[in-house]
Amino acid sequence: MFNRIDHIGVAVEQIEPALELYRGRFGLELVHRELVREQGVDAALLDLGENHIELLAPLGPETPVGRFLASRGPGLHHVAYQVPDIDATLDQLKEAGFALIDERPRVGIRGSRVAFMHPRGTAGVLTEIVEPAGDEQAR
Amino acid sequence: MFNRIDHIGVAVEQIEPALELYRGRFGLELVHRELVREQGVDAALLDLGENHIELLAPLGPETPVGRFLASRGPGLHHVAYQVPDIDATLDQLKEAGFALIDERPRVGIRGSRVAFMHPRGTAGVLTEIVEPAGDEQAR
Repeated sequence: MFNRIDHIGVAVEQIEPALELYRGRFGLELVHRELVREQGVDAALLDLGENHIELLAPLGPETPVGRFLASRGPGLHHVAYQVPDIDATLDQLKEAGFALIDERPRVGIRGSRVAFMHPRGTAGVLTEIVEPAGDEQAR
Repeated sequence: MFNRIDHIGVAVEQIEPALELYRGRFGLELVHRELVREQGVDAALLDLGENHIELLAPLGPETPVGRFLASRGPGLHHVAYQVPDIDATLDQLKEAGFALIDERPRVGIRGSRVAFMHPRGTAGVLTEIVEPAGDEQAR
């Protein structure tokens, strides 16, 4: 069902200090910045081999990442698997009985289509599936 | 400093149900099982593109993963970056002033050499560096 990780999402209080760490000190390349209002985040994508690190700072306390930070503090937030056809994968997941947060894809960062699975069905890991926009496929 | 993710560590109560999810339902290939006594874990490695998912079940409550589960429940535990020369990277990290849990490499899964950085210096993310054993380099 999955054959590559697209990105790892990291919840941070603010983007700039996290960028100083991941770009400035770890040496990752910043490839994208975006306010993803539908998810309530200020986000940054950094390249790392065939994956990305996605830094997520909340746009307010009553957003999913804001609530995550309040209860758990900064750190690893989710893992996202890249799929070529998110509609087909969602159908498979539904058929397999997985609990889904998003029954249908919504717009993610950089024009991708994304959906979240519920952590209760994925060993406690908030799990996202991502179909990149056409020109980012397989990057 | 880092140019690829080696694996994502996932803390679970028990390996078998987690394997049923990651191998049986997500379709990842199980490539290694090991009791890593130095880290107090029963571990499984599954292949995923250029990365691995590392499932970690504690050998007892008074292990790092046992304490993690007690305080946070199952879920994402750490991210590990692959490096070609862990001694050189540790020197770089020390020079850059990072807080290290392991000042020197210790033995990790599958004969690798590993060291953990302290999450307080890495935006809350428990961060590991890994030099794979010679025959696993760049896999």
